[in-house]
Amino acid sequence: MEKIKITIEYCTLCQWTPRAVWLQQELLYTFNNEIEEISLRPTNGGVFKISVNEQLVWDRKEQGFPEPKKVKQAIRDLVDPERSLGHTDK
Amino acid sequence: MEKIKITIEYCTLCQWTPRAVWLQQELLYTFNNEIEEISLRPTNGGVFKISVNEQLVWDRKEQGFPEPKKVKQAIRDLVDPERSLGHTDK
Repeated sequence: MEKIKITIEYCTLCQWTPRAVWLQQELLYTFNNEIEEISLRPTNGGVFKISVNEQLVWDRKEQGFPEPKKVKQAIRDLVDPERSLGHTDK
Repeated sequence: MEKIKITIEYCTLCQWTPRAVWLQQELLYTFNNEIEEISLRPTNGGVFKISVNEQLVWDRKEQGFPEPKKVKQAIRDLVDPERSLGHTDK
């Protein structure tokens, strides 16, 4: 499987840096063998978006803030649909 | 000034993820207006390297582990040499 690049774009004015860093670590631990690079992209305007290889997998404005489980499932479905996420899938 | 991309490449087998995440946050707070993107790139082999726009500014194998102050000064010298880092420069 090809390695992936994950990007978390988030609004700094909204004080979402801790949330972005938290989610980044969650994804680092779950996809430690798949991640080539995981980036934080500070922006503003109430943005909180997660992309995999520049493909959007989560947008707060459409879907609300994600539990890490939901993001992990969305990424898994995209990069390795057969994989079980263990407890996360329960 | 053009926005910058910072990359922290680190050995996961060495358990340096917490250190990389810590340094990332230090740099996010100091260069919040300059950073377009800050990335973690998990690797192995005892690597701990920091790059700005793909230009190496710190290499543990040459320089040892950095205090954040030293990395901040190296980045400041590269992107905005006139800027004071306040207490960090004292």
